[in-house]
Amino acid sequence: MTANEIKFIKSLSQKKFRDSSGLFVVEGEKLVAEALASRFTVEKVYRREEIGEAAMARISAFSSPSPALALVRRPDDLLQTDIPSTGLFLALDGIRDPGNLGTILRIADWFGLDGVYASPDTVDVFNPKVVQATMGAIFRVKFHYAEIPSLCKGVLKADGKVYGTFLDGENLYGKELGRDPLAVIVIGNEAGGISRETAACVSDRLYIPPYPVGDPGSESLNAAVATAVTVAEFRRRLL
Amino acid sequence: MTANEIKFIKSLSQKKFRDSSGLFVVEGEKLVAEALASRFTVEKVYRREEIGEAAMARISAFSSPSPALALVRRPDDLLQTDIPSTGLFLALDGIRDPGNLGTILRIADWFGLDGVYASPDTVDVFNPKVVQATMGAIFRVKFHYAEIPSLCKGVLKADGKVYGTFLDGENLYGKELGRDPLAVIVIGNEAGGISRETAACVSDRLYIPPYPVGDPGSESLNAAVATAVTVAEFRRRLL
Repeated sequence: MTANEIKFIKSLSQKKFRDSSGLFVVEGEKLVAEALASRFTVEKVYRREEIGEAAMARISAFSSPSPALALVRRPDDLLQTDIPSTGLFLALDGIRDPGNLGTILRIADWFGLDGVYASPDTVDVFNPKVVQATMGAIFRVKFHYAEIPSLCKGVLKADGKVYGTFLDGENLYGKELGRDPLAVIVIGNEAGGISRETAACVSDRLYIPPYPVGDPGSESLNAAVATAVTVAEFRRRLL
Repeated sequence: MTANEIKFIKSLSQKKFRDSSGLFVVEGEKLVAEALASRFTVEKVYRREEIGEAAMARISAFSSPSPALALVRRPDDLLQTDIPSTGLFLALDGIRDPGNLGTILRIADWFGLDGVYASPDTVDVFNPKVVQATMGAIFRVKFHYAEIPSLCKGVLKADGKVYGTFLDGENLYGKELGRDPLAVIVIGNEAGGISRETAACVSDRLYIPPYPVGDPGSESLNAAVATAVTVAEFRRRLL
């Protein structure tokens, strides 16, 4: 391994170098195996037994270097302007925490969503912390960046529904959910919630009731947690 | 502010110094206000306008120092060996991720759980990252450390139920949940799930069905997400 190679791999922890190279880093035996089995193109795999402990420690982002690390090519359909015609989708309106984004992709995978759209100000999905937190869901879930207000307007125009959770929304459990031919669930930013521009396109405002009703204690739920409770409710009706 | 004072505050990022002093650090205007309004004893509050920007930057764990930081005394009922007689509780069996623990306390707060018990190998609840992730729920939720297998055995002996999620459990949505006078929901470790010793005390094995059934994509859900979906289901029946 050359010094330049090491330098290049380390540079991929920064978004600008992922953008210019079109590559991202995947670490860990299991995640590398999932990358190899996926539709993604794996450019190179480094294994500890081949390059040695010391070299692996230099390229690994982990405190205890993983046995395998791969350079994977980002898909070329990342940006999406087309409006889907059927399915249940998530639209992420400015998720900033890498752990939250990874966890949300895992939720989308578990509950079989048809895709996840993220606003341009959402944290980069190829950030190493996001990749790790997806536990491999990144290789299975259809993920795109899109302008969320445009997406939502397009969905409404195609007679789809746009759902979002708000503190003044309707009780989630009292709604007939999960049977729309086309629907998007908007998930707001951790601190600010759903942006005003996106909120204007929400057709159905939902609320996850606390217990006892009217006494939530905390002001809100974590963004990934709210996603999970909402998505589970959409799928629950179909089981 | 003396150099020793700064050194002491910074030392509280380490568990051993929190243990020896009985104090932990709370940062941010909102969290400090919640600490002051809570049953916790606030020993000292430092405000940026009083100690200055430079001193605040030295004691703050954040990249942009918060306007307020407080030293708060840990409650003295942290360790618990008594078995509760009624209520719905969580029992955390080795949660290691600070963000997960904080998010779980926020869930417990939102859904009005009667308390949270954590095994001794759970991450320290006064770790600054946990405190931050609770968004203030740490000041409202009854939190204790306890030996989880002993707790579960005691709950069974008191005719309570012990629930846990397992890949071979029963469909969560097909069970009559939420009406037990006394119940504990066990949440397993992020990587290993529920320990064998604790699993032996689980009376009701649950499973969160993926969609479509039988095709989860991902192998599991994040621990906090599984907690949220399960707890929401217990409360949903009562609304």
